[in-house]
Amino acid sequence: MQWYVVASLLTVLTSSQGILTTLSQSNGGYKYDYATIPFLAEIFKLIVSSIFLWRECKKSPPPRMTTEWKSVRLYPIPSIIYLIHNNVQFATLTYVDTSTYQILGNLKIVTTGILFRLFLKRKLSTLQWMAIVLLAVGTTTSQVKGCGGASCESLFSSPIQGYMLGVLSACLSALAGVYTEFLMKKTNDSLYWQNVQLYTFGAIFNMARLFADDFRGGFEKGAWWERLFNGYTITTWLVVLNLGSTGLLVSWLMKYADNIVKVYSTSMAMLLTMVLSVFLFTFKPTLQLLLGIIICIMSLHMYFAPPTTLVDLPLKSTPVEVSVDRRTDTDS
Amino acid sequence: MQWYVVASLLTVLTSSQGILTTLSQSNGGYKYDYATIPFLAEIFKLIVSSIFLWRECKKSPPPRMTTEWKSVRLYPIPSIIYLIHNNVQFATLTYVDTSTYQILGNLKIVTTGILFRLFLKRKLSTLQWMAIVLLAVGTTTSQVKGCGGASCESLFSSPIQGYMLGVLSACLSALAGVYTEFLMKKTNDSLYWQNVQLYTFGAIFNMARLFADDFRGGFEKGAWWERLFNGYTITTWLVVLNLGSTGLLVSWLMKYADNIVKVYSTSMAMLLTMVLSVFLFTFKPTLQLLLGIIICIMSLHMYFAPPTTLVDLPLKSTPVEVSVDRRTDTDS
Repeated sequence: MQWYVVASLLTVLTSSQGILTTLSQSNGGYKYDYATIPFLAEIFKLIVSSIFLWRECKKSPPPRMTTEWKSVRLYPIPSIIYLIHNNVQFATLTYVDTSTYQILGNLKIVTTGILFRLFLKRKLSTLQWMAIVLLAVGTTTSQVKGCGGASCESLFSSPIQGYMLGVLSACLSALAGVYTEFLMKKTNDSLYWQNVQLYTFGAIFNMARLFADDFRGGFEKGAWWERLFNGYTITTWLVVLNLGSTGLLVSWLMKYADNIVKVYSTSMAMLLTMVLSVFLFTFKPTLQLLLGIIICIMSLHMYFAPPTTLVDLPLKSTPVEVSVDRRTDTDS
Repeated sequence: MQWYVVASLLTVLTSSQGILTTLSQSNGGYKYDYATIPFLAEIFKLIVSSIFLWRECKKSPPPRMTTEWKSVRLYPIPSIIYLIHNNVQFATLTYVDTSTYQILGNLKIVTTGILFRLFLKRKLSTLQWMAIVLLAVGTTTSQVKGCGGASCESLFSSPIQGYMLGVLSACLSALAGVYTEFLMKKTNDSLYWQNVQLYTFGAIFNMARLFADDFRGGFEKGAWWERLFNGYTITTWLVVLNLGSTGLLVSWLMKYADNIVKVYSTSMAMLLTMVLSVFLFTFKPTLQLLLGIIICIMSLHMYFAPPTTLVDLPLKSTPVEVSVDRRTDTDS
């Protein structure tokens, strides 16, 4: 499969995730325990990957599988980073409001670029760096509160700790992505075997979270497994399946494409969600949404288009054509 | 002189123009007749250009001057286009409010690019086209009304005639610029001789406007020349000198650089004015101003930086380095 097909599919599914989550609410709240969603999604991904791995095992040659502890022990690390990230996110939200948090979240695009360069040692051209910054600027632009919106003064008025935690949150989120890419590409192991390891630890960490929530609540509502599917509707199940599927696609992209492709997919999904919301939820289209979309499409083209189609290169048989006339005149 | 020195100077002076005009107001209004400003600026430019031309005439070889009617008759055309533009602008403002008009005004950047390509037959690379669109997007972003701002619903709610007239206005403004560039570069005539012709017609058309205003007002306030300097302060004179100087710089750029350079200068000036207003007039800095500045700086770099510094070219002695790993896998 081509990387851009997977990336497009990820955009559509990530976008559906926002829509489905909104549709799964009743009267503006969740009737089910939202923390059960990522746990069940991990289980779904684990089942799907196991089936694929089992099918691969029946074929010859059998899939490459490293089973040494030295290798397996690396697979809980993304889950651990996400766990820390969730706590930092929680701390950040005690200092800044959700819309400031959402704006700060766009920093993740830039931090991913930086860690991608530092840890994975991948070189990007100046134009690609500019494209990454523009992607972050574009998504931020689309989120600028229109006039009449509530809580508009808060953007530059939160305590400094809030912004620092927001930056830390963006770094951790990027680190998890970059580390996963490193892990997936490190060996030639079967993707499904790598997935099984990732999702086993993912399921364990999510289960631990459900236990922790119960302990914190003093088991007042009973144990999590007793009320796992409470309030679930068809839409809730679709949210689970959708989240699981996006996870599988991200995993594929980490192995066969890269973090930047993933960042573009999810950023475009955010814009797509806003456009779909205009039609589905009487969300009012703003000028800043239109501007954000134009900026992000430009950024996409700048990053992925072959350089030769973007600039006039002095490679052609015809002499270099100076596109702007910049004569200088020392007489005036 | 280098084109970028002139362009930077134009940015600073255009920016000062906005600041000076605001400073020249008293109690939110003008004590002087604003229509006298462009007239006096034309006179100032005419005097300066005449002095320079006279100095050139004393030197040898004498400056190139085409004095045939066939050539001279082309010089009132920019003034005529501006006259039509002013009327279209007036008509547009009967349909849309000033902030929508300001937003629509950014279309001028794109229409200048298009007419530059069509009439002056200048080729731009894909990246330069993208840069021009981004410049328009960036200036628009900086102007997006923050929350709490008045009249925010009006952006997409004006009658269609308003938008069409706004587009026409952008086309006329671009046409005046592109035509002036064509005129200035058409011959090797002395810049000062060309200026003398341009500004003579400019002064005549501005004088005609003052007469027309008087006729429309039934000479109630007396003839324009009787109250020409009424209410003038030092600041008003600085506005005149400043407007005249920007005109002279634009004229230089039209001959030795081009319209796109001018468009970048004036767009950057708009942003600079907003930044200076934060310090001078307790103008509140917005997130959209910051985003707009980032976008415009990216655009500037995309347009003017040598392509070889932006992209990794397959020219180097080392083999092409694929910066993004896009392996495909047909097995999954």
